Amino acid sequence: MIPGAPNEHFIAIAESLKPTLNTTKSSPLRLIKCIADENAILGWAAEDAGKLDDIKSLRDGDEIIFDFGTHRAGFFEFDIDAVLTGVEPADAPVRLKIVFGEVLNDVAESFDDYKAWISKSWLPEEIINIDYLPALKYRMSRRHAFRYIKIQVISTSLRFGVTFNNPTAYAVSSAPTQDPSPLSFSKAGDWLSEEEKTKLRKIDEVSLRTLRNCMHTVYEDGPRRDMRLWIGDLRLQALCSYATFKDYNLAKRCLYLFAGLPFNDEGLLCACVYEKPVPKFGGNSIVDYAMLFAVTLLDYVKASGDLKCGEDLFPIASKQFSFFAKNFTEDLRYIIPERSMSDGGEGWHFIDWQPTLDKESSEHAIMIYCLKATQELAEKLNLDTPLFILPDSPSAAPLPDIVERLINAHRRHYFDPSRGVFVSGKDRQLSWAANAWAVLAGVPESKEAGARAMQIAYETKNAITGMTPYLHHYLCEAFVAIGQEKFAVKHIIDYWGSMVDAGAETFWEGWDPKQPRSSPYGDLHSNS
Amino acid sequence: MIPGAPNEHFIAIAESLKPTLNTTKSSPLRLIKCIADENAILGWAAEDAGKLDDIKSLRDGDEIIFDFGTHRAGFFEFDIDAVLTGVEPADAPVRLKIVFGEVLNDVAESFDDYKAWISKSWLPEEIINIDYLPALKYRMSRRHAFRYIKIQVISTSLRFGVTFNNPTAYAVSSAPTQDPSPLSFSKAGDWLSEEEKTKLRKIDEVSLRTLRNCMHTVYEDGPRRDMRLWIGDLRLQALCSYATFKDYNLAKRCLYLFAGLPFNDEGLLCACVYEKPVPKFGGNSIVDYAMLFAVTLLDYVKASGDLKCGEDLFPIASKQFSFFAKNFTEDLRYIIPERSMSDGGEGWHFIDWQPTLDKESSEHAIMIYCLKATQELAEKLNLDTPLFILPDSPSAAPLPDIVERLINAHRRHYFDPSRGVFVSGKDRQLSWAANAWAVLAGVPESKEAGARAMQIAYETKNAITGMTPYLHHYLCEAFVAIGQEKFAVKHIIDYWGSMVDAGAETFWEGWDPKQPRSSPYGDLHSNS
Repeated sequence: MIPGAPNEHFIAIAESLKPTLNTTKSSPLRLIKCIADENAILGWAAEDAGKLDDIKSLRDGDEIIFDFGTHRAGFFEFDIDAVLTGVEPADAPVRLKIVFGEVLNDVAESFDDYKAWISKSWLPEEIINIDYLPALKYRMSRRHAFRYIKIQVISTSLRFGVTFNNPTAYAVSSAPTQDPSPLSFSKAGDWLSEEEKTKLRKIDEVSLRTLRNCMHTVYEDGPRRDMRLWIGDLRLQALCSYATFKDYNLAKRCLYLFAGLPFNDEGLLCACVYEKPVPKFGGNSIVDYAMLFAVTLLDYVKASGDLKCGEDLFPIASKQFSFFAKNFTEDLRYIIPERSMSDGGEGWHFIDWQPTLDKESSEHAIMIYCLKATQELAEKLNLDTPLFILPDSPSAAPLPDIVERLINAHRRHYFDPSRGVFVSGKDRQLSWAANAWAVLAGVPESKEAGARAMQIAYETKNAITGMTPYLHHYLCEAFVAIGQEKFAVKHIIDYWGSMVDAGAETFWEGWDPKQPRSSPYGDLHSNS
Repeated sequence: MIPGAPNEHFIAIAESLKPTLNTTKSSPLRLIKCIADENAILGWAAEDAGKLDDIKSLRDGDEIIFDFGTHRAGFFEFDIDAVLTGVEPADAPVRLKIVFGEVLNDVAESFDDYKAWISKSWLPEEIINIDYLPALKYRMSRRHAFRYIKIQVISTSLRFGVTFNNPTAYAVSSAPTQDPSPLSFSKAGDWLSEEEKTKLRKIDEVSLRTLRNCMHTVYEDGPRRDMRLWIGDLRLQALCSYATFKDYNLAKRCLYLFAGLPFNDEGLLCACVYEKPVPKFGGNSIVDYAMLFAVTLLDYVKASGDLKCGEDLFPIASKQFSFFAKNFTEDLRYIIPERSMSDGGEGWHFIDWQPTLDKESSEHAIMIYCLKATQELAEKLNLDTPLFILPDSPSAAPLPDIVERLINAHRRHYFDPSRGVFVSGKDRQLSWAANAWAVLAGVPESKEAGARAMQIAYETKNAITGMTPYLHHYLCEAFVAIGQEKFAVKHIIDYWGSMVDAGAETFWEGWDPKQPRSSPYGDLHSNS
């Protein structure tokens, strides 16, 4: 296949919106040692290993670990000097391995037996050589995401050891340097215990940090890996930002980047686009992400009031469904074509990384959810409603009609009246995803039916859950949508709280509290 | 001990003479593979592995080796681009190991089992990460010495391999870019066979390259390791340069650097000084090197006619002997104080790296050789002859008298009339060094006696030879001094020719043709 021709006009608009980054300078709080700890969820505890002034002479094989207190994305700079054993100056270069840790596991465990299928180039370790000592303000050129930095001395010489001074982190972000105020619970949540409020404040703090550290010249999916703009991540990040950092321009830039870099000449959207060294198309397209572009655009227009952007991008947002309408059967089931994960290209259906999840009904519901957003957008922009053809009828129909037919089909195919839940696939699989998306799509016949479906799905032991905070978000969004805010809050406390308990300073891409070391990529060290 | 106070005036003169470097750009000639070869002296042969255009897609574990044809000291730059497996762009950084080889062994063998006592930081390998592809004109920041460059791909991702374009070396040197003409043998050497002339032309070419690649902002002892200015190396490099590249200012700069950075406040000279990040004292002093400073200064004054420099530095050159006069016994034997090699500091007696060499008589002879040069320098500069006190007499005596007493003592203690050779130590050890230095010092009673001593030492099977080209030079210089130029030329063909046969593109610091993998440092990979 051939990438779609870039829309240079849209790319130019995106580039004009590229933000400058704010830099925040900070020093480590202390030195630590990592201690294996059975009681720690990820297996390690940090033990105080002294103050920064305590660094003496480090020789071959020695190491120190700086603890900066919290996570950041940025650059590391330090002064290094020789500690001589006699009168001779440092007579050789010094070779160092520097490891950047988001969590203790990164600096406590070796990366040598890395087993993930994604590139080990992402492992946050570098080997550097410094020829002449002292070297002041030695700045590592690559951006890293870290709370901890481990420095291992590979080699000095017989004549000298090394010591470090002024270790400094220069965190960068396009978010404003000031955080919003901590949660006050003055408008909502008065039913929460103090303990729960404390936990939620911590979760909010980690959420804001996650968002901040992903905000650069695009909304990155993760600041350690792969530092890239994906529609699914963008939607949730932008939503969160509208409510906190009040960013609109970064979201707008990202929307134009997607619009400017279509997957093919028909205008199918890429799931991700690349920003560096120059903006370019991302080489794959995810069905649910392409559909969610309309929702992301609607969110943006509503939050910013920027109708011009809505008008520019509506044609692209609204046409995505036309690429997937062919995946419906004549009785409007949604069929997911067979496809290997490693194929790349188009036709990827994501929903979540949970490998056993049957995605049919979730995708079906996402279509409805996104078509509704498209209709709302058309109305907001005073545009004609788009027409689509579905396999159940030869004639094109306006969006509200399409939505109605799909809702009916969803109820018919995916609602199990005997259990009161939405299911998916030939095995009628019960999952959180199927029920959350059905609720968000407005499929249940009543609020009570939706609430019941959600509750049963949530409480059924064998229901398929989710491996990503991404899906857990939609679970909570569905609880809120169906009037069960307390379930949402409890779930936030349980799920995001369990990451906090495991040492998360930012929330991870994948997390299953029952299998803390599991990873969608095959290795914990890839779970940025 | 405390370093001597720097002489800022001399350092300023040295800094004013810092040369600019000439840059020469070149491309590899081909790709090679290393093949184990029993017939190759160092164990490896290069096999053609194609043209530069033949580089396809390199993935994890793949490697290529560039052959630039000859050795250089400089910088490596290349373009790297992704070779995609599908439509998705390169979705991860690429991590590479780059190994710089002076000889095939460097790129054919792993450095992992390195056993030398000098720092493994010198091993010429680097690991780099390149975040975005294509990366054009990626320039490695550190200078390396190489003919070969091996690139090993540590990791790409499932989505891409990498390819390399425009690999380019930027050689740097303060030598003029044009080599002197090849040896013509028109003035000397008409007795040589064509085969010998060819070999000598090759040796001359490698010698010039060695010199060029050591000429930077000082005369470096080696461009790969330790890239530092030592008196012993300086003397021979400068001598060679006066006859070839006609450099005088670099030698002058080096002389002033030594004079500006004394080992102690009495003015003892350092064996080496450091130039970067700022000029500083070298932390050790070698007795024979300190003495040879006067010879180096005399050479320079004679070659350049720069009497001013001679006058500036004569007081420092001429006082060195006063630090060592105490090492003589009352009957003027020279006693080498016990000292561990790893001590650093003063009192190191070098002569050569050969561990079994007894150095007593060589050091004794070097004193004479250097005192004679000091006297010649005093005469050339119309300065008073210096006075010294030796333990055989309470009164100070002028240099010619001191020299005469030392020559007599040398004959008495170190000449073995029964064998007609000079010997050293209580075991009356026969060595090349003892005889070469005795001849250079003018100790033998006649030219014939000197020639006989040299010939016997050279031809006696168990005589201690030398491990360094440095000592082999003085062997040849002694042959020439005693009128046996043919021996010198034959030895050059044998010894330096054996390095050429072993694949030397520049001559090494240590080389024993009988033990090609031996090293003064404990590992072949340290023999730069």
